[in-house]
Amino acid sequence: MKRGLLIVVSGASGTGKGTVCKKILDDMTDVAYSVSATTRAPREGETDGKQYYFLSRDEFSTWIDEGKFLEYANVYGNFYGTPLNKIEERRNRGEDILLEIDVQGAMNVMKKCPDGVFIFLLPPSLEELKRRIEGRGTETPESLAIRFNNAVAEIAIGRDYNYVVVNDSVDDAAAQIEGIINAERCKVARNLDKFNF
Amino acid sequence: MKRGLLIVVSGASGTGKGTVCKKILDDMTDVAYSVSATTRAPREGETDGKQYYFLSRDEFSTWIDEGKFLEYANVYGNFYGTPLNKIEERRNRGEDILLEIDVQGAMNVMKKCPDGVFIFLLPPSLEELKRRIEGRGTETPESLAIRFNNAVAEIAIGRDYNYVVVNDSVDDAAAQIEGIINAERCKVARNLDKFNF
Repeated sequence: MKRGLLIVVSGASGTGKGTVCKKILDDMTDVAYSVSATTRAPREGETDGKQYYFLSRDEFSTWIDEGKFLEYANVYGNFYGTPLNKIEERRNRGEDILLEIDVQGAMNVMKKCPDGVFIFLLPPSLEELKRRIEGRGTETPESLAIRFNNAVAEIAIGRDYNYVVVNDSVDDAAAQIEGIINAERCKVARNLDKFNF
Repeated sequence: MKRGLLIVVSGASGTGKGTVCKKILDDMTDVAYSVSATTRAPREGETDGKQYYFLSRDEFSTWIDEGKFLEYANVYGNFYGTPLNKIEERRNRGEDILLEIDVQGAMNVMKKCPDGVFIFLLPPSLEELKRRIEGRGTETPESLAIRFNNAVAEIAIGRDYNYVVVNDSVDDAAAQIEGIINAERCKVARNLDKFNF
């Protein structure tokens, strides 16, 4: 069984990772979503086990103690974590897993899964990034300023990724990432079986 | 000016490199064809300077002496060569160059242009490869047998490439290579300017 890809899509807060990843998952039925765990409250339309595993603080601590997380981080007061055991199981079954994760989390994934494909999503401009963060309407002015300044700092980290895609439009960014996934599937190292006639 | 990609599409004789590359060039107007030189006679419909520079043996020798070739090889009695100076000029102008080349030639290109993107095209099966070589109708039975045995030996060399694509259908193989080209364009190392806001 050929081990599946781990495709990590990351980028600064407000870059539009979620929307782009949703489009990719709609388009590519052979790519599976890595469901994260979080202690933040569900937003409207979110259901447990689909967008996230919504955990209490206590439950989250137990998962940490049980070593279930590939990484976890405290982001603006809420915990987010990525269950490693589930990702590994699925990759070993040959599934290609798409992981949408913030920049802090992606840095941890780079250490633990160096065979991942790391794709950094950039906003078209800082002005547009600011507009998008404001447009969410879920922030106070203070948390907005923090989020924007952090986003600018996070963008510099993108240089350590494998690929960079500008999120000018959701459709174009998703198409570019789909191209990257298909290209990674064509890497010789993943296809040595094809040379055994 | 960002240096252009050198995309090398290669594969055993009869794998269908030419047809696949033609489709890619039709689809991607921002990819330019690297025109090779040869001493073989033009086939029907081929014109000098478009599919090849058709040279006499003497002219070809002069180009060798003048160091104009990235590589050249004697394939079944005819010389084929790739003018390096023209490829370099165009890459330095930012053009992405598609180079369709036999396996011998590609091995030389790997040494001289290690920053190239090397894509190996596989036939769907050895039976299909045999059919395709026979179908050309330009070969004697002896040259057919030599060509087929060489093709099988050449396929093993594909392990040294970056990517492998199976030529099941021209449209699918071309689409996969177009995805690889787009993915290579997204590599962080080629896009460091995007992090300067």
